[in-house]
Amino acid sequence: MTTIRAYSATAPGEPLKAVEYEAGALGADEVEVAVEYCGICHSDLSVWKNEWGNSIYPLVPGHEVIGRITAVGTHAKKVKVGDRVGIGWNSSSCMCCHQCLSGDQHLCHDALPTMIGHHGGWAERLRCHWAWAIPIPEELDPKTTGPLLCGGITVFAPLAAFDVKPTAHVGVVGIGGLGHMALQFANAWGCEVTAFTSSPGKTDEAHGFGAHNVLSSRDSDSIRSIKGSLDMLLVTVNVPLDWSAYMSTLAPHGRMHVVGAVPEPIPIAAFDLIGGQRSVSGSPTGAPVSMATMLEFAARHDVEPETEQFPMSEVNEALARLESGKARYRIVLKADF
Amino acid sequence: MTTIRAYSATAPGEPLKAVEYEAGALGADEVEVAVEYCGICHSDLSVWKNEWGNSIYPLVPGHEVIGRITAVGTHAKKVKVGDRVGIGWNSSSCMCCHQCLSGDQHLCHDALPTMIGHHGGWAERLRCHWAWAIPIPEELDPKTTGPLLCGGITVFAPLAAFDVKPTAHVGVVGIGGLGHMALQFANAWGCEVTAFTSSPGKTDEAHGFGAHNVLSSRDSDSIRSIKGSLDMLLVTVNVPLDWSAYMSTLAPHGRMHVVGAVPEPIPIAAFDLIGGQRSVSGSPTGAPVSMATMLEFAARHDVEPETEQFPMSEVNEALARLESGKARYRIVLKADF
Repeated sequence: MTTIRAYSATAPGEPLKAVEYEAGALGADEVEVAVEYCGICHSDLSVWKNEWGNSIYPLVPGHEVIGRITAVGTHAKKVKVGDRVGIGWNSSSCMCCHQCLSGDQHLCHDALPTMIGHHGGWAERLRCHWAWAIPIPEELDPKTTGPLLCGGITVFAPLAAFDVKPTAHVGVVGIGGLGHMALQFANAWGCEVTAFTSSPGKTDEAHGFGAHNVLSSRDSDSIRSIKGSLDMLLVTVNVPLDWSAYMSTLAPHGRMHVVGAVPEPIPIAAFDLIGGQRSVSGSPTGAPVSMATMLEFAARHDVEPETEQFPMSEVNEALARLESGKARYRIVLKADF
Repeated sequence: MTTIRAYSATAPGEPLKAVEYEAGALGADEVEVAVEYCGICHSDLSVWKNEWGNSIYPLVPGHEVIGRITAVGTHAKKVKVGDRVGIGWNSSSCMCCHQCLSGDQHLCHDALPTMIGHHGGWAERLRCHWAWAIPIPEELDPKTTGPLLCGGITVFAPLAAFDVKPTAHVGVVGIGGLGHMALQFANAWGCEVTAFTSSPGKTDEAHGFGAHNVLSSRDSDSIRSIKGSLDMLLVTVNVPLDWSAYMSTLAPHGRMHVVGAVPEPIPIAAFDLIGGQRSVSGSPTGAPVSMATMLEFAARHDVEPETEQFPMSEVNEALARLESGKARYRIVLKADF
């Protein structure tokens, strides 16, 4: 079987249509996965509309896949037919460069995004390199785990990569698809957690996700009221902010870490960096081992995305719902081919 | 003796005049130091002219002091009369806050700059908290060591604080007072060192200070030619640069570290941070233990500022020389009261 049914767009922002594509022979290092569920990430929306200018059409979006392995290539290692796995932002990397051999496969120059130049997970099946098929712990609910594979690792990886201590004070800007997972992870990490949201209606929910404090993300006075207190400030939104106010919230050695695709350059005053020995940084999802570690941590601490489920056949309705900003908090498509 | 002869300015940019000031009783935690030599740092120029808006007049500049202790307060520890010590940017810190008790006294909110709200080192004597009087190793030449106390620690501290490995590739932007010490330190640290300078005439000297490669700091194509290669890029200048080109030089996990007082906000693209998990950061001088470690390292590796010497009585001529940009590479005043 090399024909795969999928939902595909032929041009930026055009409605997705049910198609069949020819997948060819399975590569030696590839596995094929039958999709059970696939999340919708905000980046699906951005790539669908070609907002970043790097989309390739026809486009099969989807990169928060949960499914079972149906076939393995001749050189595939570690996973076997029948395993439940997850696939996130990347579907492969070269496995031979400095970054790959260092365990930073997500920084590989040739890492192939699951849905750019590759057919993604809004489909009955998809393929990936065996190393990028991440085994899913049994304790996790396959219906809600998809969003951990991209959104979840994006907010979890900085806690691990930058050695955030459980004693740290962590801020999360934006309580949406990424932010609501960030609150859970930071709380489970042992940190004191402050949520910044532009939606007053989300205050109670933010507390429910693990925030100890909730502040307005748009009120500069409110932001500045916690001046000098945060060790890590995770920015999950992709809109311009009062950056100077947010920099003021950082403690000495504090770090503002950006995972939202903010389109305009962020203006950073040298003195804001120098004065308190502060950093500004960013990171893209995570490597396979980080993803496996994240899943194990999520299982142990009951970190779970809050999701709305749509049948995959209603993907256009689901996309519209995401775009409306009303999704609470992440949408998952259930394959119904 | 509570009267101290010094060089003082009464308003921004006014010529320094020989004055005497009343120093009062020596504080319990203070030591008094007879100045032998004092460097001129670019920040002396900035504070003299009140470019940062925080100068206090009458102003006695000078914060790269080498001298001998002549008196110790009743509670002073560790140092004794006759010891040769150095004093840098800070003359005291509270010693009881979270930062001070963590060994980050340079990040103390109440750290008192040696020449802002305190009389500095262009004087026959000055005072400081005993912990901020850093013992000078015998191997170091007192005539040239002053600049290590501020400029030196400013470029040395990031190598230590951010765990730069001897295997790292380090860039230094600006080969002046700070940069020529940064090249020496980074080379002695074991790193591959690339200098960026706007002065073609400095190429040979940059190699002499330890640069393996020298590139134009103003030629964007030249900068971009080493795309993705630097683990640490130390920016020692205080002028706007082609920030996007410099960000492109960073390897995955790379860090652009700013120690120059760049006046305009630095525009940083989120994708430049996210793509390679990169950081932008800054830091102010260093803590007493870092300064002592730096001096020991400088002694072992023959790191020595290249200096021009002026008698302190010619301080106005020396300031003009610094301002002309012709100093190679750091000016030291010899006390001649």
